[in-house]
Amino acid sequence: MPVNFSEIIDVLGTLAFAISGAAMAVQKKLDILGVLVLAFVTAIGGGTLRDVLIGDLPVAWMRNETAIVVIIAGALATFFFDRLPRHLSKPLFLFDSLGLGLFTVVGIEKALVHDFSAGIAVTLGTITACFGGVIRDVLLNQVPLIFRKEIYATACIAGGLVYTMLTALSLPQKTVQLGCLCVVVLVRILAVRYNLALPSFLRKD
Amino acid sequence: MPVNFSEIIDVLGTLAFAISGAAMAVQKKLDILGVLVLAFVTAIGGGTLRDVLIGDLPVAWMRNETAIVVIIAGALATFFFDRLPRHLSKPLFLFDSLGLGLFTVVGIEKALVHDFSAGIAVTLGTITACFGGVIRDVLLNQVPLIFRKEIYATACIAGGLVYTMLTALSLPQKTVQLGCLCVVVLVRILAVRYNLALPSFLRKD
Amino acid sequence: MPVNFSEIIDVLGTLAFAISGAAMAVQKKLDILGVLVLAFVTAIGGGTLRDVLIGDLPVAWMRNETAIVVIIAGALATFFFDRLPRHLSKPLFLFDSLGLGLFTVVGIEKALVHDFSAGIAVTLGTITACFGGVIRDVLLNQVPLIFRKEIYATACIAGGLVYTMLTALSLPQKTVQLGCLCVVVLVRILAVRYNLALPSFLRKD
Repeated sequence: MPVNFSEIIDVLGTLAFAISGAAMAVQKKLDILGVLVLAFVTAIGGGTLRDVLIGDLPVAWMRNETAIVVIIAGALATFFFDRLPRHLSKPLFLFDSLGLGLFTVVGIEKALVHDFSAGIAVTLGTITACFGGVIRDVLLNQVPLIFRKEIYATACIAGGLVYTMLTALSLPQKTVQLGCLCVVVLVRILAVRYNLALPSFLRKD
Repeated sequence: MPVNFSEIIDVLGTLAFAISGAAMAVQKKLDILGVLVLAFVTAIGGGTLRDVLIGDLPVAWMRNETAIVVIIAGALATFFFDRLPRHLSKPLFLFDSLGLGLFTVVGIEKALVHDFSAGIAVTLGTITACFGGVIRDVLLNQVPLIFRKEIYATACIAGGLVYTMLTALSLPQKTVQLGCLCVVVLVRILAVRYNLALPSFLRKD
Repeated sequence: MPVNFSEIIDVLGTLAFAISGAAMAVQKKLDILGVLVLAFVTAIGGGTLRDVLIGDLPVAWMRNETAIVVIIAGALATFFFDRLPRHLSKPLFLFDSLGLGLFTVVGIEKALVHDFSAGIAVTLGTITACFGGVIRDVLLNQVPLIFRKEIYATACIAGGLVYTMLTALSLPQKTVQLGCLCVVVLVRILAVRYNLALPSFLRKD
């Protein structure tokens, strides 16, 4: 079975977010089913919202059980090796950032396949990457991380703009994908490393 | 007008969840419109999410006003006979459990009509049964019950597996439906009666 | 380019809700991206839910970038003129009430174009007008305003009933639209002015 690069990106992003969702559920002391549900919601929430908004139904994970297998594997691994999140918090952060970059690419490309404009494509890439985490936070009854701290959606928007520019330069698709991915991951890492934040009303006082 | 067994199941489940949602709204001291909205959301939330994910639009309650009439009747009865929830908490719990079992059956069968695999069907049955309550809890700004205590989604998954097995044995549809319904209700009642819970990270310490 | 009255109503409602969402985000001290996201969600949330429930996909704002431009303009204006919400709280309240009335009209008319019954049309008008605010409140982790105080959804339902009655009297469309709009705005203003509320369980004691 030939597998293309975009499918690999999708599976890796799904795994990264499943682990990220499961790790937060373990931290909140949910039972094993809660861990599975949170991993599932975090990994497919953004793509599901994107597919619903576009009208590409049934949503992707119902047509392709690879995602479900990957999510269950990632969630169970996180649940049973529960010390992992503590000892490996840096790799987990990298994985979450990687998921953010990978899903931005997936979302943009799905929008372009459906002939949306570049602006809508960047918006859908950002929704795909960020809304799984938003739904996870809403279900856990906390203000979504995206609103609280860290450059998160901003990294996706920056990556999306780079995707658009590199495409306009007629570069090959893999180069464009890698460029977008690297920008998202780098912006996020640098923002957390140097504690960068967007201007807010509070800081103006 | 001939009415089939599946439609009766759907109406009963809708009524059970409308009463359950309205009772929680009364308990939270919402006004009469809040009670109606909560009853509505609890009763149609799971089925609406299922229909949206499948792409079976417009969603069911917009094509069939029976559901709306049943919900308004259940909500108003709960609002005006407000002592009912306190004096009848056991019957209400049974009603909620019944709704859970009935909607699991409805969701599985809708998925099978749309030719999804057994795994997706059990998932959609569980979503149909549980997500009305999840949306109700999110709107009331509390961590969804499904994540906090009681075997809830687990009962639906157990019932879904029984549905799949009995279907594989070529039993008649009504037997399969009743088997699934009984398993969901029994698992839930036994779990609450004997205070059963799934393993969680907390209890491993 | 000829522009019809319904499109003007839609743009004005979008602007009113974008400013209302952005003002709440500024008040909650979100950063500039959070302000943009909240303005966006408040302005398009209700219409997006309506389009998804109907199955009119992709949702409206993805097919027409006017809404996005209006929302960004309204959000940035609110963010940079941050004293505006404090000095102009009365005009803002009027604007929010206007948005409520305008979106009720938009939602009802979209439902009627899709041949739904009057009852479903009033429901969809109310959803269009109210759910952007509900989603905004859920993301900010607070119990939706609609459940807490002020006649909100009630104003939309009252306006929707007036729309239905005036249509039954065969009045011209613009008269019906203005009648519905005025009723929604008046009911809301009078309710806040005279501190009216619907009966609730609490107040019966």
